Amino acid sequence: VAKRLEKFKTTIFTQMSSLAIEHGAINLGQGFPNFDGPDFVKDAAIQAIKDGKNQYARGYGVPDLNSAIAARFHKDTGLTVDPETEITVTSGCTEAIAATILGLINPGDEVIVFAPFYDSYEATLSMAGAKITCITLRPPDFSLPIDLLKSKISKNTRAILMNTPHNPTGKMFTREELDQIASLCIENDVLVFSDEVYDKLSFEMDHISIASLPGMYERTVTMNSLGKTFSLTGWKIGWAIAPKHLIWGVKQAHSYLTFATSTPMQHAAAVALRAPDSYYEDLRKDYRAKKEILVAGLKSVGFNVYPSSGTYFVVVDHTPFGLPDDVAFCEYLIKEVGVVAIPTSVFYLDPSEGKNLVRFTFCKDEETLRNAVGRMKERL
Amino acid sequence: VAKRLEKFKTTIFTQMSSLAIEHGAINLGQGFPNFDGPDFVKDAAIQAIKDGKNQYARGYGVPDLNSAIAARFHKDTGLTVDPETEITVTSGCTEAIAATILGLINPGDEVIVFAPFYDSYEATLSMAGAKITCITLRPPDFSLPIDLLKSKISKNTRAILMNTPHNPTGKMFTREELDQIASLCIENDVLVFSDEVYDKLSFEMDHISIASLPGMYERTVTMNSLGKTFSLTGWKIGWAIAPKHLIWGVKQAHSYLTFATSTPMQHAAAVALRAPDSYYEDLRKDYRAKKEILVAGLKSVGFNVYPSSGTYFVVVDHTPFGLPDDVAFCEYLIKEVGVVAIPTSVFYLDPSEGKNLVRFTFCKDEETLRNAVGRMKERL
Ligand SMILES: CSCCC(=O)C(=O)O
Ligand SMILES: CSCCC(=O)C(=O)O
Repeated sequence: VAKRLEKFKTTIFTQMSSLAIEHGAINLGQGFPNFDGPDFVKDAAIQAIKDGKNQYARGYGVPDLNSAIAARFHKDTGLTVDPETEITVTSGCTEAIAATILGLINPGDEVIVFAPFYDSYEATLSMAGAKITCITLRPPDFSLPIDLLKSKISKNTRAILMNTPHNPTGKMFTREELDQIASLCIENDVLVFSDEVYDKLSFEMDHISIASLPGMYERTVTMNSLGKTFSLTGWKIGWAIAPKHLIWGVKQAHSYLTFATSTPMQHAAAVALRAPDSYYEDLRKDYRAKKEILVAGLKSVGFNVYPSSGTYFVVVDHTPFGLPDDVAFCEYLIKEVGVVAIPTSVFYLDPSEGKNLVRFTFCKDEETLRNAVGRMKERL
Repeated sequence: VAKRLEKFKTTIFTQMSSLAIEHGAINLGQGFPNFDGPDFVKDAAIQAIKDGKNQYARGYGVPDLNSAIAARFHKDTGLTVDPETEITVTSGCTEAIAATILGLINPGDEVIVFAPFYDSYEATLSMAGAKITCITLRPPDFSLPIDLLKSKISKNTRAILMNTPHNPTGKMFTREELDQIASLCIENDVLVFSDEVYDKLSFEMDHISIASLPGMYERTVTMNSLGKTFSLTGWKIGWAIAPKHLIWGVKQAHSYLTFATSTPMQHAAAVALRAPDSYYEDLRKDYRAKKEILVAGLKSVGFNVYPSSGTYFVVVDHTPFGLPDDVAFCEYLIKEVGVVAIPTSVFYLDPSEGKNLVRFTFCKDEETLRNAVGRMKERL
């Protein structure tokens, strides 16, 4: 294995999902729904396959999807972007992240990430030879330590890689925090790579794209995907939006990482993104109910549950149960209780920072959530 | 744009396919069929979508596809591989190439490629910081200059990245050439990354996987895909097969480049790979007829057509028509004749080596091929 990947293990999601199957445990680990995506989107994919839309897509996206992405971005942020020259469709947001980093970051560039972070951030930064500067968001509210951020920006800082709503904590960056990040970036000529795949799963406040703040569009790559919002995580349709001078690098890296993304799925994604507002309202309503079941359940079991404003995840402190760390707790939970959660220590540069925290997802049907809570009540 | 991608332009396939649309030209450039894939495969994808196989696949492939890949590889090569630990499914062979290189090659490692080469080879080697050693295969027969290869292997040579049947030339490496490569690799402890996406499109001789030669499996990553064989280039299902100690690096890079590949399409790919031998025989029969139309046509127009034993491409010498180079010829062909071909100079480290050669594809229905030949006869 090449040195750039030497330190990485099998991803925690793969590990935990395999263990879930092996032990017949209820999987509240990896973030994929156990219910299906909407028929109007599935039907659109079926139609595209039948219609023979089965050959290479244009590398940066089928025209109809690029238009639909631009239209939704306009609706969400007020920004007008050119679908042809400011958008690149990718094979999931994971590829958008990889293409953004490999396309724009040089070896030795400093990139700031907020821990806990989605594990691909560290791995792709390592592939690019970036120097990672990590700022930890701490419970209970995971708020931005702005002075620390300020102190970490140097003349070598090329970008801040952020995620709002934030996986795994459910934190959403507030308008004030985003303003603070924006001023720092403008002052110091720093880019922002913003992963917003959970934008439609916001429960307490409206999601804000940092690209929409004054002066920010020109220095931001906004990344998103279809999977979470349309309960079709297996379709792997993502995209990056950025001004021409930035999207060029993303597009180039994408050209040589995958070249193009599944054509029929792109046609269906275009249909999905034209969903009426009511689709998103219903989605949030469903998820709010699921969240209440899980959060109330976890509290009743005795966890200290940290507030989550967005995503379909909640983070808890497991220490009341006396296991030494998050990994030991998750092992116990799988083997003795029959429930899978995700240990968070892999989401920190310094794993010991995550040792009290584990993540549960509520992207499961209500009965599954109740069963999981039931098992924990009985056996923990 | 990051330095690793600075020298690369929009891929030639994207450029030429856009020009084809813009000028209403017949596209014999990028290699995608203008006919559809088989119903039994499309139906399997539709069924998978209907059956709710729409959430994240296992990162390295859905179990049924990994098994089908192992079974076909066994049938083709006699090798028995473990579907669970020696195969990684990727988003097209382009991702398999990127993941293999980023997963196994360190900065400064020397990798040997044969020019002309598929353009992603150079770009991904550049992303990995590899030192590229290029050996040119020359017309008329594009045979392997074995003494040159021998002389280029040094103690820093980590791998040979090869492609058989070979895009763009249609050359197939002979058993003798493969034996020579194999001995050199074993002697010098060099890996082979073998892109075999055109394996089923072999017209003059049987395709041989270099992994099947004595002592070679343990040092070879064999890469393949669904698209060319099943006329579904837009589905983007590829894979890499290698022994555990090599596949690990590929799997890790894949985990962070895209994480997983479209779930319903993987289920359909598993069905496709279980096609009876007659499917492949019919495919070859169809393509042989197409090839005859194009080759006879190009000869009658006055091109010097080089023999192609595999792939759906042929390379010709355009110099009888008096244009200064391949790019100028292709421009003339699009604008004045209404046919798109691919200039080959982008497939060489030294572009001047490709200046006499252009590539045509015959993965189009017979009428389209006849029309293209007709236009050339009339207007060239
Ligand atoms: C590939 S797992 C992707 C992210 C996610 O769903 C999770 O964090 O569980
Ligand atoms: C992405 S284009 C892939 C290869 C191919 O089809 C071609 O060489 O034309």
